[in-house]
Parts: sequence; C-alpha cells; structure tokens
Amino acid sequence: MDTRNIIGYRYAQGDNITFKAVDPSSGTSLPGDFYIATLAEVEEAMTLAWKAFNEYQHIGKDKKVAFLRAIAEELKANGQEIIERAMSESGLPSPRLQGELGRTTNQLNMFANLLEEGSWVEAIIDTAIPDRQPLPRVDIRKMMVPLGPAVVFGASNFPLAFSVAGGDTAAALAAGCPVIVKAHPAHPGTSALVANIIKKVAEAQGLPEGVFSLLYDYGYVIGEALVKHPNTKIVTFTGSLKGGTALMKMAREREEPIPVFAEMGSINPIVLLPLALEKRSEELAKTYTDSITMSVGQFCTNPGLLIAIKSEGLNRFKTALAEGISEINSATMLTPGICANYQRLVNERISSTEISVISQSDKLNAEKVNQGLAAVTEISAADFLANEKYKEEVFGPYSLLVVADDVNQLEQVLNSLHGQLTATVMADAEELPNYKQITNQLAILAGRVILNNPPTGVEVGNAMMHGGPFPATSDSRFTSVGTSSIKRFVRPVCWQNWNEDLLPDELKTNNPLKIWRLFNNEYKK
Amino acid sequence: MDTRNIIGYRYAQGDNITFKAVDPSSGTSLPGDFYIATLAEVEEAMTLAWKAFNEYQHIGKDKKVAFLRAIAEELKANGQEIIERAMSESGLPSPRLQGELGRTTNQLNMFANLLEEGSWVEAIIDTAIPDRQPLPRVDIRKMMVPLGPAVVFGASNFPLAFSVAGGDTAAALAAGCPVIVKAHPAHPGTSALVANIIKKVAEAQGLPEGVFSLLYDYGYVIGEALVKHPNTKIVTFTGSLKGGTALMKMAREREEPIPVFAEMGSINPIVLLPLALEKRSEELAKTYTDSITMSVGQFCTNPGLLIAIKSEGLNRFKTALAEGISEINSATMLTPGICANYQRLVNERISSTEISVISQSDKLNAEKVNQGLAAVTEISAADFLANEKYKEEVFGPYSLLVVADDVNQLEQVLNSLHGQLTATVMADAEELPNYKQITNQLAILAGRVILNNPPTGVEVGNAMMHGGPFPATSDSRFTSVGTSSIKRFVRPVCWQNWNEDLLPDELKTNNPLKIWRLFNNEYKK
Repeated sequence: MDTRNIIGYRYAQGDNITFKAVDPSSGTSLPGDFYIATLAEVEEAMTLAWKAFNEYQHIGKDKKVAFLRAIAEELKANGQEIIERAMSESGLPSPRLQGELGRTTNQLNMFANLLEEGSWVEAIIDTAIPDRQPLPRVDIRKMMVPLGPAVVFGASNFPLAFSVAGGDTAAALAAGCPVIVKAHPAHPGTSALVANIIKKVAEAQGLPEGVFSLLYDYGYVIGEALVKHPNTKIVTFTGSLKGGTALMKMAREREEPIPVFAEMGSINPIVLLPLALEKRSEELAKTYTDSITMSVGQFCTNPGLLIAIKSEGLNRFKTALAEGISEINSATMLTPGICANYQRLVNERISSTEISVISQSDKLNAEKVNQGLAAVTEISAADFLANEKYKEEVFGPYSLLVVADDVNQLEQVLNSLHGQLTATVMADAEELPNYKQITNQLAILAGRVILNNPPTGVEVGNAMMHGGPFPATSDSRFTSVGTSSIKRFVRPVCWQNWNEDLLPDELKTNNPLKIWRLFNNEYKK
Repeated sequence: MDTRNIIGYRYAQGDNITFKAVDPSSGTSLPGDFYIATLAEVEEAMTLAWKAFNEYQHIGKDKKVAFLRAIAEELKANGQEIIERAMSESGLPSPRLQGELGRTTNQLNMFANLLEEGSWVEAIIDTAIPDRQPLPRVDIRKMMVPLGPAVVFGASNFPLAFSVAGGDTAAALAAGCPVIVKAHPAHPGTSALVANIIKKVAEAQGLPEGVFSLLYDYGYVIGEALVKHPNTKIVTFTGSLKGGTALMKMAREREEPIPVFAEMGSINPIVLLPLALEKRSEELAKTYTDSITMSVGQFCTNPGLLIAIKSEGLNRFKTALAEGISEINSATMLTPGICANYQRLVNERISSTEISVISQSDKLNAEKVNQGLAAVTEISAADFLANEKYKEEVFGPYSLLVVADDVNQLEQVLNSLHGQLTATVMADAEELPNYKQITNQLAILAGRVILNNPPTGVEVGNAMMHGGPFPATSDSRFTSVGTSSIKRFVRPVCWQNWNEDLLPDELKTNNPLKIWRLFNNEYKK
C-alpha cells in the first residue's frame, strides 16, 4: 500500500510528516504512515487539475465511460483487501462493507450508463426563424457543461460509497470535472488503496494528468487551502453541521464564491399516526429498533425523532421498542471522537429533567472500546417545543420520542422543525386522508417523504432525492445520491448562431448521439 | 393611480412618509406620492405570503395559468397608461417600452404555456421491484416543488420586463411561489400601475391573499428586512455588483441561508478575429456602433470590451467605429445617479494615461438633463493586463478596445477576465477552426457564447441561458431569462412508497396530465 499523496501521476511526501490510522475497536494504531500534504502540493494538484479540466471536459463520453467502468472493475478485483482494511479502520462489519463496495461499483457503472444514454446534458435547441415578426429568431442551443475541478471530502461513515471513489467522485468525473480528494483521516488506508486504483486506471487510459489527485491531512489546513484555491469550482462534503457550515463560509468568502454541497445534520422525523399504532404497534417497534440501530445508528437518515399522539397504541409501541432496544448489543463506532460525542450527548439527554428513558441497552462488549449503546428517550411535545437543543442531531443509535397531547400539538412540533433529509409518516391507509395538513408539511420539511418505510436505506437511482432544506444540506435543490446528483457539477451554456460543425455533438441538428432533446419546443430523439 | 403599498388585498400607508418619482430628462418631480413601507408592513406581507404559499403551491396548474394569462391581458389593456408613465420615469423612448411591454406579456404567456405542457416539473418515477436481489426496490417518485415566497427586486433598466410583472415574478408565480416585490424607486408609478393590476386579478380570481404584495422604499431598510425575513426563501435581483453582493451577504448570513439570484456586472467581451476584420471591418463597426449605444448602453449585455489583434483591418474598423459613434446623439439615462456614475467613469478612463480615445460623441441635447454621450476608447493588451480596474463595467454607451500584439496576448486577455453573461467571437468561417482554444475559453467565461451576432438582444425562449460565472451573476447554474428560469424557484422532493391516490397528479402511474417523465429509466408520456 502506497501511503503518499497522489498528485496527478506522481507521489508526494509533503514535509515527511506522517500520521497513522487507528482501529476504533481496540484504540491501537494500524500499519502504514500517511504523509500529510503541504500547501505547495495543494498548489501543484490544483494547477494540474485546471490544466486537466481544459482537456477532460472535451474528452467525449466514451473515454469517461471507460474510465468509470475500469475503476469499478478494479475495485471489485481488489475488494477483499479494501474491505479488510476498511473493517479495521471503521469498525464496520464485513457484510455492511461488502454491501457498500457493491454500492460503490454500482454507482460508477450507473454514471457510465447515464453517459452512454446521454440525455442528462439537457440539450435544448431553438433553431432560427429568420422571418419571425417583429424580430427574427436567432439559432440558440443550450446544454450542461462541467463547472470545473471538484474538491471531494471523504465521509467518515461511508469509507467507500462516499469517499475516494464514492458518489461525489463518480458524478464529478462523469460530468467532466477533475476530482481532488481530501482523504478522511479516519480511513487513510482504505483511501490509499482506492486512490491508487484510480491513479493506475487514469494513467493506463492516458487521461490528462491531474484528472484525479488525493491529499492527506490530519487537521484542517489542507482542506481549507483546497476550498480557497481559485481553481476549485465545487466542493462536496458529508459530515457534521459544524464542518459543513465552516466550508460554506470559506467558499462564499472567496473572491469568486463557489457552490458547496454539504450534507450535514438531520434527525429524520417519523410521525406515527394513531390508527397505525393501534393496529400494528409491535411491528412498528420492530421496524424502528432495526432502523435506529443499523450500522450503530451512523446513517444520515437515522430516525432521530419519533412523534406521536398519546394513546394505548403508543404505550404498546413504547413497551415493544423498549424490549427491542434493550436486546441490542453494543458495537464499535467509527471513531473515538464520534463515540465520545455520542456518549456525551446521550448522557446529557438522559440527565435532562424534561426527558425520560424508554430504554437503554446495557449489553456492552467489554472486550472492545468505542462502543455505542442504543438508547431511546421520551419528551412531552410542550417540553420539546420549549427547547431548541432537542432538534439537534445525536449521531448514533439514539432516538427521541415526542409525545403530543393531540393532533394540533403534533402539527406544532412538525412546524417547529428545521430542514431534513427525510420525513416519514407511519399510517394506516384509512386514516391518511384525515392528515393532509401533516403530509403536506412533510414535503416542506424534507427532500424525501416516506410512507410506511423506515428512512434508513437509500435507493441509488433516478428518482432518489437525498438532500433537503438547510441545515440538512447546504442546498435543497440538489441530491447527493442517484443519477440526478451529476447536476451538482454542471452549469448551462448556450451557443448562439454557431455553425453546425463547430457545435458540440449533443447540439448538432442531426443528433448524432441520439439523445433526448427539447427541439423547437418538442421532446424528441 | 393608487400609490400605497399593497399587502395582499389591502393598501397600507406606512408611517405616511412619501417620496416622488423624478423625470430624468428634466430632473423634475412627477405626480404621485409613494408611501414608504414600514417593518411592520414587511412582517404582515411575509406572514400573508407564507400562509398563501401553503395553499398556492397546491392550487394546480389551471388556476396558475389563468392568473398569468389574465395579468398579461390586463397589462395589454392598460398598455398606453403604463408606457406613458414608464417613459416619464425612465427616459426610455416609446418604441423601446412598447417592445418591453410586449416582452412582458409574452413572458407571462410563455410560463402559462409551460405550465399547460407540464413537463417542467422533471417527474422521475422508479416503481417498486419487490423481488430484486439482494434487496427489493421500493417505489420512489420525484418532481420539482416550489421553494416558498420569493422577494423580487425591480430592476432600473427594465421597468416592465424585469420589474413588478417581469420575468422573475412570472417564473415565481408559475412555479407556485408567492411574490413580494420591492418596487424600484426610479419607477414607482409604473410599479404602482402594474402592481394594482396583479392585485386586482388575484382578488378577482379568488387566489389566496398574500400571493402578491408590493412595497415601496427609497432606501435600503425594506429590502434588507425582506431578504432577512425567515419566510423568504428566494431573492431575485438585477442591478449593480455592489447591490447584488450586498444581498448575497445578507442571504447567506441568515439562520437559514437562502439562494439569491443576482444578475450583476458584465462587460460582455467581443473577440474580433483578423480575417473578419480584414473582410468586413465597416460592417462590424456598424454592428457595434448600434450595439454599444442601443438604449443608451443600459443593457446588461452591452459590449463593454472589444478585443482584437493589431492589423490594417482593425485600423479600418476603428475609423468606421469612430465615425459611427461621433454621429450618435445624446440620450436620457435612467436615473441621475446612473448618469453621474457613467460620466465619472468615462472621464476617469479618458484621462488615464494608458487609454486613448477612439471617438466620443459631442452631440449633446442641451434641452434635457442626465444625457449619456457615447464613447469608445482604446488600450494596449499589456496595459489592460496590468490594470484590474479596466475589467469593471461602465454602465452606459461605452466600450473599451483592447489591442493585442498577437494571438497569444489576445488569449492572455481572455484568460484574465472574470465571469460574463455573454462572450462573442466575430469571425470568418475559414479562420474559426484555427482558434479552437479561444472558442473553448469563451464557454468557460460566459453563459452565452455567440458567433457573429451582437450580444445585445436576448431571445426569450427555451434554449436561452442568461446568466454566467461570478461576478456576472451570483449563480452560474441558473438563467434569469426563458422558460428554464423557472428552475430558480423550485427544489426536488421524492415520495417513497406512497399510495397512488395520495401522490401529486404529476406522479400518478397513469399520467393524468400526459407529461413527459422518466419512467423506469425510459422517457415517455
């Protein structure tokens, strides 16, 4: 495993200052010394990226498709080594990481398919009408073009699917944007293995040097320098509200402000309606025991807030949820910092006078460290409404049940929430028409509105919207999952009055790429 | 003419403090006392707007279509009165304002047509695949929904097409967003006439109160309060870089940052290639004499920068341009402030040692005030590259010719420019293939890339991209002109696992609206 920074096609050792990865389940260091990048290396990577952009943006879909597919193949071929390292670095179990590797390669191939189909450029053509009155219409043709080099921050909770070759990188490379990854310090070895694959593939395929680089840092200096570099045109990030808003601030205070796509905190409210609770409280409790504790609650779609009206059904739900949660074994959290923060926040909540404990697991694995124990607590709607702090995310296997006196109070709770990734209603078909106000409110709150499904589990496809109003993300108008996530990396350009042969293929009249276009106000191929 | 603030369906007189409109051609006051709004009235308008949003966003396309079409009809019916007032307030001549009124009503009808067609919501449907391995696929359906109340700042240079019932308002109302207009103080009477039409139509059609409001202010207090109000979800603005960046700062420093679509400064570079100059220098000079001086140069697409390599052809172009410009009569500029600023900047340029005058008209109409006189000046590429200040916009009938020694220096000039609305190349068909580097660079610089057309004259249609990299606009990913400008007012939401009858019509399986959708990866109606 090469542990040096990757700048285009060369390796760089910075000032020979290194750090080590930590196994969170034991707290001990893992093999490998990772070289912290320098500001000079940032400059070099960004200069190469801009040079590469001038070529890569015009390289055509076939070469981009080959690039993405080859990365996917190589990841698969080296899957065992990557997964083993990721297990040691993240504490996540093998099946979860097997699934994540599958998702990662699927994402790369999904964007390759999107490029082959081709319609994603949103080509619109209005041909000239020289005899239009009172003024002639001139020929205008518009399509999406890549924005420029993208800085991708690896995510701690998805060492594969949202890190070096994850969704952001795949979408950016597909759009025609070079990628500079700032490796997450929690899994530098996983990052190194994956980054070396991308470097090897890019070099083998003769792609412009600088189309991909990867830099390590244990602190914030390199990330800040990357965001502030004038050649950077987009930033993507998945992590905390604090981290995301810090990047947003840097990006907008540049001489040229640039978009930051930060996916940050979300408590993913679940409304449990009365008839659903009456009819199937045990089933709902089982669903949420699983959803709250899956991957030690370290999903951005973890259901951190349950909202219901007091009832017999709710009491049964609570009893069943308490039983379920108490059976959940502790598990290793991603980093010592995440675990310490989780324990601190849960203890704060539990010791609050407004909050009572529904259940807290005590099944601690004493042979390991950084163990997250599941907990579910309860608060009255009145107390919730009076305390802004309970709207904050507790990252881990935790949920807060808000108990309302009636439907009006339940609506008040919903109206008081900030923007969310997801908002869910668990309901019986019969009762839903009576709660139109609530279902409408869910679509104002969140980017994904769910009926009778847990929010965990994000389908990677065309229709997915993984994003939502601030502070869930920095920009509610874009998804970070699915084919539409490519739209984060592009902007429209129109060509006016150009000769056929000088236009991009996507805009030529005879449609050589056979893509869907809006041609003189008609959708056609 | 009612000169009070319009808050939903009532009139408001603020604290009874008023201001008057000024006729810029005479410097004298025009009839009408316009009531400056108060912060309490901002609160009232925004509270109503949010209430209206909850209803208006679900009102369905037919009522929105009727609303837009009726506004257009009423504007037409009251055209004479509106145009006369706009002439007095802006100094713009009748034919220009006739054209602008036509554009305004066309824009309203264009969005009505877009709603009737319906595909603009970008519906994407992935139906469930219960037996998919390793995991079932759940039903997910996505479409665009309105963001919320939009604050629209009227523009000084388009008293009709980018003010009260202009492109921003039409797009926002079409998207399902209530609109609160901050009237431009340079044309309050025009604003009053148009706003009263919108109020009357909304009331007659029984639309939710608060779907439209209009507030007056002579300073910045009301605009700032509107941008900072938590119910405001989008801001649109057309004006100066200083004004636009001030709004951007306010919007991002809110507790919930919101998008600002500001169209700001642009110098719209024109590259004149050698063979074009050799073959048709006189024709090019005629084109640019017209384009630079049209509407006293007060277009955001005014060609403020011409770039060419020194040659005999260029000398002939300069001679012909000098003749043309010297024949242009002075004309009234939009406001005393705009005129004073124009004169100051032109004088600064002319007195710079690096700059020489190609031509300055002396045909001053001494019977009027606030007269703009056309001027064209020249600078060497070396001096241009050494002086950042010459990249700034001079709003008015002015252009700066940058003379390069060779093509490399010309490229350096292009590479040194900031983001632009438009970038143009005037070229002979024969020579274009030799300048690929330059034509590629134009598409990095600007949102609209033009061949052998002047940049003035913006087609309002599907393919138009009126926007560009900062500082031309605040967000290069959106256009403020044409059907695509509706995308500024929406965000995607997906519905997961919903019953057919509870889904929006756009997402029902049987496609009752017969719109284009991506259905299980296939585009169809």
